Amino acid sequence: MNTESRRNVEVCFTPGEYEYFKGEYEIIVVIDVLRATSAICVAFDNGVKSMIPVSTIEEAREYKEKGYLVGAERKGQIVEGFDFGNSPYSYMKEEVQGQEIVLTTTNGTKALNIAKDAETVIVASLLNLDAVCKWLENQDKNILCLCSGWQDKFNLEDTVCAGAISEYLLGTGMFTSSEDSSIAAKYLYLSAWLNPLGYLKSSSHRRRLKNLNLNEDIKYCLTPNQTTVIPILKNGKLVKL
Amino acid sequence: MNTESRRNVEVCFTPGEYEYFKGEYEIIVVIDVLRATSAICVAFDNGVKSMIPVSTIEEAREYKEKGYLVGAERKGQIVEGFDFGNSPYSYMKEEVQGQEIVLTTTNGTKALNIAKDAETVIVASLLNLDAVCKWLENQDKNILCLCSGWQDKFNLEDTVCAGAISEYLLGTGMFTSSEDSSIAAKYLYLSAWLNPLGYLKSSSHRRRLKNLNLNEDIKYCLTPNQTTVIPILKNGKLVKL
Repeated sequence: MNTESRRNVEVCFTPGEYEYFKGEYEIIVVIDVLRATSAICVAFDNGVKSMIPVSTIEEAREYKEKGYLVGAERKGQIVEGFDFGNSPYSYMKEEVQGQEIVLTTTNGTKALNIAKDAETVIVASLLNLDAVCKWLENQDKNILCLCSGWQDKFNLEDTVCAGAISEYLLGTGMFTSSEDSSIAAKYLYLSAWLNPLGYLKSSSHRRRLKNLNLNEDIKYCLTPNQTTVIPILKNGKLVKL
Repeated sequence: MNTESRRNVEVCFTPGEYEYFKGEYEIIVVIDVLRATSAICVAFDNGVKSMIPVSTIEEAREYKEKGYLVGAERKGQIVEGFDFGNSPYSYMKEEVQGQEIVLTTTNGTKALNIAKDAETVIVASLLNLDAVCKWLENQDKNILCLCSGWQDKFNLEDTVCAGAISEYLLGTGMFTSSEDSSIAAKYLYLSAWLNPLGYLKSSSHRRRLKNLNLNEDIKYCLTPNQTTVIPILKNGKLVKL
């Protein structure tokens, strides 16, 4: 394959920088490893029919009043009065099967919403990493990995996940990267892959400390390839691809 | 020294993210390796008395009409009608000695201007790396390395320079880092240091291609420790520390 016909795969570190990338990529891969996109993958793996990502607690509350099951997380905690937070474990229940669930989280649903006008928006985490890579490889489209970050700042775990996706795609010979953020993500992934849990410990440290129950969540979210499900956004709702 | 009394050294990747960091750091270290802060270091090393960073071409033009020597760069080129761009070589002239020079560049002067209300703002590049590290080590202040980026996006060479500064300060035992961006900058610096020119080639490639004369500039700017000068912002003007 000659260089001219290669597609781009790039990495955007935060939702705030998305405006400098937008419009050039047909597929946006939204990543929030700790924990929104991991929880979404788990929810679909457990039979959820669809999920509606909303940006604000107010919107989430309106859905709750209409009788929906609603997940709402802020600063790592379930918001009072809602059914779920963004712990993957809370979606491993029979009651979610066949349901439509509304979700708002600090970082992840924000990223989903700013990307929503793109041609195709999918959800990735380390949990569905291989499935996402293999699906993307066959699309022949330009791809942007959009990291959700942490409160508008860069975060390491989303970047490492984005680096893993782009490194895989670059390895097929059908893709190319030119942004410095993509090059950096690749290097960070390559320094992390031998011991991702150890590597990312420093990153999640301050958040883990805030909530003693986060330890198991973090370990789970950092264990790649536990599902082959790929959630995709269709008319404002996430469904199974 | 116990952990409590350690100072922070953190890295902010782009001027756009500065708002999420600002207010917590007494010293802001502005970095634009290719080429604004490198050129500023060279200018002071060649005897410039002071430099006035301005954000717009219009402001620069007003100074030019008043008779100042003015540097103005946009998209890597000297803007027509001005005396200098941001090539370090253009400041290696006897005529700059003792002069006050006005400067506007795509990324670097923008970063200087958004940081200007901080207690202390200094200018760093790879050219004055050691001098900056040793000076910072003795200040007992919280430090933020502010990368200028490239047109509001992350760039690799500024991040590697910031990573070098923070790695040095962390090594003294008197500083600590907690932001993921700082951890990433450190890793990127550590992967770059054995062969910085090779490492950063991928980064500067597209810019180098745009201008055949950039090759020498890039090589110069990526060669550490060619001066011990540290420019510092005082009442809106850069002067020698």
